[in-house]
Amino acid sequence: MTEFLNCPIPFHTGFSAQEKIVMAHGGGGRTMQKLIQELFAKEFTNEFLSNEHDSAQLPMPSGRIAFTTDSYVVNPLFFPGGDIGRLAVFGTVNDLAMSGARPQYLSAGFILEEGFSIESLIKVVRSMKIAADLSGVKIVTGDTKVVEKGKGDGVYINTAGVGVIEHSLKIEPSSVCVGDRVLISGDLGRHGIAIMAARSGLQFETTIRSDCAPLSPMVLALVEAGVQIHCLRDLTRGGLVSALNEISQKARVEIKIRESAVSVLAEVRGTCEMLGLDVLSVANEGRLVAFVPESDVERALQVMKRFEVGEQSCEIGAVESGGRSRVLIEGLIGVTRVLDMPSGEQLPRIC
Amino acid sequence: MTEFLNCPIPFHTGFSAQEKIVMAHGGGGRTMQKLIQELFAKEFTNEFLSNEHDSAQLPMPSGRIAFTTDSYVVNPLFFPGGDIGRLAVFGTVNDLAMSGARPQYLSAGFILEEGFSIESLIKVVRSMKIAADLSGVKIVTGDTKVVEKGKGDGVYINTAGVGVIEHSLKIEPSSVCVGDRVLISGDLGRHGIAIMAARSGLQFETTIRSDCAPLSPMVLALVEAGVQIHCLRDLTRGGLVSALNEISQKARVEIKIRESAVSVLAEVRGTCEMLGLDVLSVANEGRLVAFVPESDVERALQVMKRFEVGEQSCEIGAVESGGRSRVLIEGLIGVTRVLDMPSGEQLPRIC
Repeated sequence: MTEFLNCPIPFHTGFSAQEKIVMAHGGGGRTMQKLIQELFAKEFTNEFLSNEHDSAQLPMPSGRIAFTTDSYVVNPLFFPGGDIGRLAVFGTVNDLAMSGARPQYLSAGFILEEGFSIESLIKVVRSMKIAADLSGVKIVTGDTKVVEKGKGDGVYINTAGVGVIEHSLKIEPSSVCVGDRVLISGDLGRHGIAIMAARSGLQFETTIRSDCAPLSPMVLALVEAGVQIHCLRDLTRGGLVSALNEISQKARVEIKIRESAVSVLAEVRGTCEMLGLDVLSVANEGRLVAFVPESDVERALQVMKRFEVGEQSCEIGAVESGGRSRVLIEGLIGVTRVLDMPSGEQLPRIC
Repeated sequence: MTEFLNCPIPFHTGFSAQEKIVMAHGGGGRTMQKLIQELFAKEFTNEFLSNEHDSAQLPMPSGRIAFTTDSYVVNPLFFPGGDIGRLAVFGTVNDLAMSGARPQYLSAGFILEEGFSIESLIKVVRSMKIAADLSGVKIVTGDTKVVEKGKGDGVYINTAGVGVIEHSLKIEPSSVCVGDRVLISGDLGRHGIAIMAARSGLQFETTIRSDCAPLSPMVLALVEAGVQIHCLRDLTRGGLVSALNEISQKARVEIKIRESAVSVLAEVRGTCEMLGLDVLSVANEGRLVAFVPESDVERALQVMKRFEVGEQSCEIGAVESGGRSRVLIEGLIGVTRVLDMPSGEQLPRIC
């Protein structure tokens, strides 16, 4: 289905291609030890993981750190443009990046379902390793649990991340102020639609691939360029609509965007129309919204466009006034309406 | 079933007693926002959580940090002596303590099953808050996912933890050396047996309560007293047998313990015999093994016995020789045998 799945995966010695996860893989004995030593420790290998202790001991410069967590329960596990492993690394890396932090260390907690194929697990773990290398983070600590068949969905992954904050900006919703410009880093809706298309049972097929990608290099470049970032948010569950509403509520400001400025692939737009979805509420996994002062817009866009994930960055609106939490959108035919927080019920589970 | 469940739980405004988790609680919209703001943010409230951002931004002294993660999938969720929430906090706090770190920050990732009772979730969350306060940690970041009915087990919780290492010891398996004494902090087997007894379908009842407790205050006191700790390990999955075997393998040493020195409650011993379990392989959630030089044994035991979790601390053996990884036990009638790593298959899932 993806280029990743088409690659031949050399098999680990010690596991057979037909092997399945059994309860003992989470039992704390020899069977679990083999899984940890032969798979996780070998794939994720680094100087911190190797002490095989209850917690990793890590050097850390003084100052501020960013800390975040996310669980990944996506179905299907492999989809066009990514898989649950890549998502679990990039998603947490991106949450760290939203504080302008340099992602440093990740933890990985696996909840495996009895009967899950070890071959699939190996693919997921390798994908995590590749994603971690791409993002410049090390997976330094982990955990494996096994639940009875039927009490999971193959594999759930939790990652937590620690990053170093090397700047003195306060990148958070409450820093947003009137006059700030709203930038987004590219076209919207690809991840959610790619997942929905990949789900079995849906009666359509598309060529849409998830936008799943690490945002930290672009964000670190913005910080380095001296852009006065007020707030960043990645446009995951609930998409742009949730992100803007949450920021508007926290900062107590009215945000107004122009629908015509938001780029959406024709195929994504078509699929959304077919399914009755608002593309602005669909999840992305490699897109962010940035709030910056007007004076920094040009510099910010210049920096963002240097990166593949930000090639189509553009300004879509501004913070119009304070005191009232509301998001407005000027539609394609010029009519302005309120862009309400979605209930969360409209979409199938996509992350 | 526990004293905790017998307490009346005042209900949150905004949730009704019969309310259940629905898919939208994980959808990124209003329904999820309400759950986060009305439950998680209110219960866990602290200065870092309140910025409601993708990652928490936290002060951190320079030096080393400890970082760890664990997922909790225990069934039943409430058991004598604890519940999944308490376990999720103390378990991760204890893993940080095994590096001699001062636990500082926790993340909490919830995987909720559609149809799970919100009343139970509130109980779990409150229990986590109480446990965090007892352990001196703050829950600073979190995540909520909802999986379809039948693809979970009520609630799975992942916690990751960050602690500060304020000492210069290298507390890890590779620091263990010949001549070290092996100390344990109390009687063994209570958690595993309490869980098994609480499981529906088992045809026996006991009054055994889990030993679930935070070990960090005791460990920090050991560090402060200047005890030259070489290694610590909490005796969770796989119990004492797994812990000693893992350390022996990593340190390449032969460890010998005396069975007569290990204290086990009569009821725990009886239940183990009835079920055909080796009590030394049964999980604990408030017990540790410590490796210290002979010269520090007396001081270490003095410190440990000052704490309720360490009242029954004692020496159970020593590191006999190097070069060969093996754990030996001198049985009650004087015969010495090898204490092999369990396969992990013998126990029902208990953590």
